[in-house]
Amino acid sequence: MLKRIDKNNKEQLQSYLQSRSQEIESDILIKVSEIINEVRMKKDEALKKYTYQFDKIKVDTFKVTEEEIDEAIKQCDPAFMDAMKQAKENITFFHKAQKQNDYILHKEYGIYLGQCIRPIESVGIYVPGGRAQYPSSVLMNVIPAKVAGVQRIVMVTPPDPSGQIHPNIAYAAKLAGVHEIYKVGGAQAIAALAYGTNEIPSVDKIVGPGNIYVAAAKKLVFGKVDIDMIAGPSEILVIADKNADPKYVAADLLSQAEHDPMASSILLSNDENLISKVNCELENQIVGLPKMDITQKSLENYGKSILCESIEECIEIANMIAPEHLELMVNEPMNYLSQIKNAGSIFLGYYTCESIGDYFGGTNHVLPTNGTARFSSALGVDSFIKKSSFLHYSKQAVQAYGHQIETMAVQEGLQAHANAIKVRMDKS
Amino acid sequence: MLKRIDKNNKEQLQSYLQSRSQEIESDILIKVSEIINEVRMKKDEALKKYTYQFDKIKVDTFKVTEEEIDEAIKQCDPAFMDAMKQAKENITFFHKAQKQNDYILHKEYGIYLGQCIRPIESVGIYVPGGRAQYPSSVLMNVIPAKVAGVQRIVMVTPPDPSGQIHPNIAYAAKLAGVHEIYKVGGAQAIAALAYGTNEIPSVDKIVGPGNIYVAAAKKLVFGKVDIDMIAGPSEILVIADKNADPKYVAADLLSQAEHDPMASSILLSNDENLISKVNCELENQIVGLPKMDITQKSLENYGKSILCESIEECIEIANMIAPEHLELMVNEPMNYLSQIKNAGSIFLGYYTCESIGDYFGGTNHVLPTNGTARFSSALGVDSFIKKSSFLHYSKQAVQAYGHQIETMAVQEGLQAHANAIKVRMDKS
Repeated sequence: MLKRIDKNNKEQLQSYLQSRSQEIESDILIKVSEIINEVRMKKDEALKKYTYQFDKIKVDTFKVTEEEIDEAIKQCDPAFMDAMKQAKENITFFHKAQKQNDYILHKEYGIYLGQCIRPIESVGIYVPGGRAQYPSSVLMNVIPAKVAGVQRIVMVTPPDPSGQIHPNIAYAAKLAGVHEIYKVGGAQAIAALAYGTNEIPSVDKIVGPGNIYVAAAKKLVFGKVDIDMIAGPSEILVIADKNADPKYVAADLLSQAEHDPMASSILLSNDENLISKVNCELENQIVGLPKMDITQKSLENYGKSILCESIEECIEIANMIAPEHLELMVNEPMNYLSQIKNAGSIFLGYYTCESIGDYFGGTNHVLPTNGTARFSSALGVDSFIKKSSFLHYSKQAVQAYGHQIETMAVQEGLQAHANAIKVRMDKS
Repeated sequence: MLKRIDKNNKEQLQSYLQSRSQEIESDILIKVSEIINEVRMKKDEALKKYTYQFDKIKVDTFKVTEEEIDEAIKQCDPAFMDAMKQAKENITFFHKAQKQNDYILHKEYGIYLGQCIRPIESVGIYVPGGRAQYPSSVLMNVIPAKVAGVQRIVMVTPPDPSGQIHPNIAYAAKLAGVHEIYKVGGAQAIAALAYGTNEIPSVDKIVGPGNIYVAAAKKLVFGKVDIDMIAGPSEILVIADKNADPKYVAADLLSQAEHDPMASSILLSNDENLISKVNCELENQIVGLPKMDITQKSLENYGKSILCESIEECIEIANMIAPEHLELMVNEPMNYLSQIKNAGSIFLGYYTCESIGDYFGGTNHVLPTNGTARFSSALGVDSFIKKSSFLHYSKQAVQAYGHQIETMAVQEGLQAHANAIKVRMDKS
């Protein structure tokens, strides 16, 4: 069922995968930039208009009250809430280790220099509405911001036809510690977060997934505020040796494929026999899946297998593909970790399926897609901080090194730069 | 000479400053995207064509040889070379402290998880040509990449009319440890770095300043490769108390103003008298500056002063402006460091003029402009690494927590995600 690709064809595979990324069409960009401009000008009035237009709901105020949240949460499954609490604890545990410290270095003549880490002051999280609801995404976006020390975390999400937000989303927001929730979605919500309205004060950074209009709006407000990456279709790459259970491998490939017809599931192995068995298992396990149609399309178009000489060769190809998710279903997986150069998140061993990390293990599920793991990383505490460097030179230090600084400034033709040092040396 | 702004008008000041940022016009984007497409298709042939068109030079090969570099360096001023060596040492010293370590955390049932730091594999540095040459920028862009462990650092820079690169740039590249230099500039050079040509292999990230065509090209190739920020006009904000020497303050404001008619120099003080004296000093010191015209224009349009009640109030306003460079010319400046929330780089005390940091002190001079210090940071080692998370669950861990993971997957309507856990629990 997985189409075979020759291992020497790996560059073609890579460009094929990257071809899944869709440019935002210019008519969408134009439409979205109109929405943004109207929200900038008319503020809440524009928000209400677009909420009526797109969500078919008349709203007076966007803010979700404490009472609404508590009322919604009453509908949540207690087993789900328990699982979420444990997930929160695990995600917090992992992300706390990402915190960086300030540093200071001292040198001769009382010179000192260093770096301060400061949280971004305010952050907006976009949470999609509609039938699909992903409370796990709320945890994954909010918890790193909390650990970083962000003082104001604002969530926006479109209301359902009855003007409510989904109980599971309300619970996730409360559990994660969101400070304010507003019932507004789409490009208009992104515009509100970037520029502020009467009711919704602006933020410094916007994160979270959304549809093509939300993605276009994020692209357009970038610069005024920061944004996270704009995620492309998801992918998994499984490296499996002969001891891997084909049943497990197939289940993991299917879990990726059910996301999206553009999702891609790739199996690399040094064992021909395993690949055949996985193909059989795929046929068996796909039957009866609620998202069988999507899953089938995804596997047909983007399900691939590659036979390699060795696990080392599998890893070489994986480094070239730079997958979002990489499962190492091999014996003693830790032995291979140092060889992996490009991967968003790595799942080690026969029992660590991707869904453990999607929900519960503690690592973040907001990951670089489409080969961008070559140069970017998962969402994390670093996504919610910024650094300021500082430097101190004493009178003596200026006397000792002033002439060198002057020389460099003069060579670059910047006399006023040189003068700033010279005035201080004259008086020294 | 600095126009006075009322301290309560600070939001106006902020939006005024941000208005300096220029959108890239669409005709430039269209022209540049044509250049990029031609380089993608015709590779070196297109590079040669554009180099002839824009730089008026016919080139056979772009690579600068070791001999060319050594020949060029013979023309460098030995005092300049000494200063550069010391600067390199200082910059390396500061950036080494930015290196993050891998971490691993262990939990019950043999669960472990963590994060690996890996250098980006290959990086391209753009170095502008023309009359202005900034060897300090070569150090500031290359050294953090070296410290991060980048294996291949490629420099591109346009040739001068005789087909040479500037001796100071050649020296800076050799000193910093650039691996390859190509004589090619403009949008075509960015296209070559992003997509590769016969002679120039592609890289994973492109950094370095350039003109509007280079900026447009970087914007367009972003996603295929990573880029650094696209810098706007530069700014300095000086906070000075009554003990600050007006001569020093004026010199520092002028050093910013000489960069660009759009550069902005702002003085905040709690002392009316100091502001007056600085204005006098500006009149005196500006006379005879080689870039007096630019400096004058910059001060007229963007030179501002604000009188505050206290240093604390000055800092509040500075946090709102989020300046690229912040000088704290006050007594005991370290006492105020914790109050500074938004600033690219901070210069502490009466003797630490910005030009020490521009060239020599060790902190990076590639900084967030235009208020983006609210959410972004100086170029540094973090700009040249990416992180991969890893997770391991044992059979026992899956047995213990599998039902919780399954519950979350089912609540989100992702049955194949749930199945990936279930198949492992069945067999456990």
